[in-house]
Amino acid sequence: MRMSKTFVKTLRDAPKDETARSAQFLIRAGYVHKEMAGVYDFLPLGLKVLENIKNIIRDELSKIDCEELQLTALQNPEPWQKSGRWDENEVDIWFKTELSSGGELGLAPTHEEPITNLMKTYIKSYKDLPVYAYQFQTKFRNELRAKSGIMRTREFLMKDLYSFSADEAEHAEFYHKVEGAYAKIYDRCGLGKDTYETFASGGIFSKFSHEYQTILPVGEDTIYYNSDKSIVLNEEVVVPEVLEEFGVKKEDLESTRAAEVGNIFTIKYKYSEPLGLDFADKDGSKKTVFMGCYGIGVSRVMGVIAEKYADDKGLIWPEEVAPFKYYLVGIGEEGQKTAEEIYAKNPDKILFDDRDARPGEKFADAELIGIPYRVVVSDKTLADGKAELTVRATGETKLVDIDKLDLAR
Amino acid sequence: MRMSKTFVKTLRDAPKDETARSAQFLIRAGYVHKEMAGVYDFLPLGLKVLENIKNIIRDELSKIDCEELQLTALQNPEPWQKSGRWDENEVDIWFKTELSSGGELGLAPTHEEPITNLMKTYIKSYKDLPVYAYQFQTKFRNELRAKSGIMRTREFLMKDLYSFSADEAEHAEFYHKVEGAYAKIYDRCGLGKDTYETFASGGIFSKFSHEYQTILPVGEDTIYYNSDKSIVLNEEVVVPEVLEEFGVKKEDLESTRAAEVGNIFTIKYKYSEPLGLDFADKDGSKKTVFMGCYGIGVSRVMGVIAEKYADDKGLIWPEEVAPFKYYLVGIGEEGQKTAEEIYAKNPDKILFDDRDARPGEKFADAELIGIPYRVVVSDKTLADGKAELTVRATGETKLVDIDKLDLAR
Repeated sequence: MRMSKTFVKTLRDAPKDETARSAQFLIRAGYVHKEMAGVYDFLPLGLKVLENIKNIIRDELSKIDCEELQLTALQNPEPWQKSGRWDENEVDIWFKTELSSGGELGLAPTHEEPITNLMKTYIKSYKDLPVYAYQFQTKFRNELRAKSGIMRTREFLMKDLYSFSADEAEHAEFYHKVEGAYAKIYDRCGLGKDTYETFASGGIFSKFSHEYQTILPVGEDTIYYNSDKSIVLNEEVVVPEVLEEFGVKKEDLESTRAAEVGNIFTIKYKYSEPLGLDFADKDGSKKTVFMGCYGIGVSRVMGVIAEKYADDKGLIWPEEVAPFKYYLVGIGEEGQKTAEEIYAKNPDKILFDDRDARPGEKFADAELIGIPYRVVVSDKTLADGKAELTVRATGETKLVDIDKLDLAR
Repeated sequence: MRMSKTFVKTLRDAPKDETARSAQFLIRAGYVHKEMAGVYDFLPLGLKVLENIKNIIRDELSKIDCEELQLTALQNPEPWQKSGRWDENEVDIWFKTELSSGGELGLAPTHEEPITNLMKTYIKSYKDLPVYAYQFQTKFRNELRAKSGIMRTREFLMKDLYSFSADEAEHAEFYHKVEGAYAKIYDRCGLGKDTYETFASGGIFSKFSHEYQTILPVGEDTIYYNSDKSIVLNEEVVVPEVLEEFGVKKEDLESTRAAEVGNIFTIKYKYSEPLGLDFADKDGSKKTVFMGCYGIGVSRVMGVIAEKYADDKGLIWPEEVAPFKYYLVGIGEEGQKTAEEIYAKNPDKILFDDRDARPGEKFADAELIGIPYRVVVSDKTLADGKAELTVRATGETKLVDIDKLDLAR
């Protein structure tokens, strides 16, 4: 992409009400635009980061045989009434609206009810199981307070996966596969090292669920862990019964702030039973489908990555989520000509700062935008047949032979 | 994709209230699932068709320098109040909702106001123009009646492009480029031959807008055309003044039913003026940005293609929008073994019917699902080193050398 061709420009200031550092940088660098509290547009660079995260998730979920579909935002109350979650005393973050032809509708905050209902068309027999279906869908949650930039919003992109199994054993096997896929997803998103699968409250149907928590000073949650981090607990389960079960004492645990980046949940018959999702088993008996659900907030993950890796100069994207791998600047007549040639070879990998601006301004924007590698070709470096390569994360710079420079990788 | 691995199955019946033939087939073949009137889920095959149409649009728009972004569904009333379109007497298809922290919100039925507002951050000077930005976004329209399957729905996927130009001449040049891009898009979607750019009402700001209308017996619109179709008019502009302008008489025009598959619209200052989207021109004077908007209903285009090409056996997808290019069936022991080998080479291009089912059932599903080419390898065809290739659209069948069968293309 040519910087001279995009409408987006880096901004000197972020909105005054934006307190999260990641949100300030994401706005100033031109990744997102704030519509109102908790509601953000994704500009071209931001959309590329979202797509990269989606592609990582899609790739890992396809390896464990998940199928992608897309449900709707508008919700018929009926299935939600059956599960009891239409009631605003049960679910307090509904946005509701009305059909002009009469009748109330909701905007989906999650999709257990509609997908359970949908599967009644397709699951009739043990031969139809298991089913693993997921989507990337905009969720709407009427949060009383929206803060932390794109880490907690009223409209956000979520990957939600649902599993439908014949029994608990079949479910457990898939649940374990999802754990493996999630580990790979957070690794590829650059969050692997500081992301832990934690024990969290399981609600009334399971003892525990699991959350994925990334250590982050501004995170909304607190997690507790033992010395080798083999036991990591969400704050809400640090109670005497649970500590006893894990054989640890509270005083032996350390705590830190963290941000939830995903969850996996055994939901058993919570929705399949009231909605009547049954199947005929081998012996002809009628059984209820055993369910699980598995979420990753895609835009939230983007916010957590932004928050985690920023420094005082701007964003720092891990390679696989970065909108472009290289930020290219040409200085001087020959430098600019050579930069044009380099760009022409790999335009999809390169954010080419071909603007009519001072090198210092371009370097500052390169740091704010946070592309992993900056490549500078100037008349001076070219005199020795070299280009300058700078790693955004470390600031490390070296001269490389221009003939050996390969920006295809 | 293996048929044995997907949860979706073809269905014997469509919902009784579903009158459009395309909707019946799309549901029975497993492309979509009806949530309620005018609200449809997209199942794996349906999502693939949508993605293929999106990719065609994306490809053609990138060639005319358009940038992709993504705005939000939730709408702050403020910019809409400025343009006068918050008022339900002006726009009668709003879904509105409320923030739990207080205040009304809307669900975007279109995005002129928020994108005009957004551009106030980025357009300040003549140097910042022109800007061409588009998105694929879910639109919400509170239609009193929803019918025609996915051709007219309350929640649908739309491509909406907005242009921001310094003056009418710059706008006209881009408008013409969009006409070229749209022609290519409808061609690639298989609708080129029967799709016409029509003159439609321009509203209060322009004499005419243009619509793209595909001739379709169940279409909602009526278009009028002269003998060589050099003049094609929407019904609403077939009035004495317009007929006089084009130098034709009503009795010389023929009429037909058609479905709108897109529109392009010169909106001049309709939103930029009330929202204050100005720029400093070369001479320092303040001018208002000149705008255009250009829509294509992506899910509607899918519905029109489905409707247009179906026969009494099922759907018939044009190659570039089809979810898979080949439908593969193996018959007999050797036939099945060879089919597995063929599938393994190009799994992304092939819908492999590896189910434990009778060939007749597979052939019927192949016709219902409407994949362009059916490939059958049986012990009998293999005895002569052949496979049977059938074109879905024509029913034409021929035997081809198995060694020369290349399903990569």
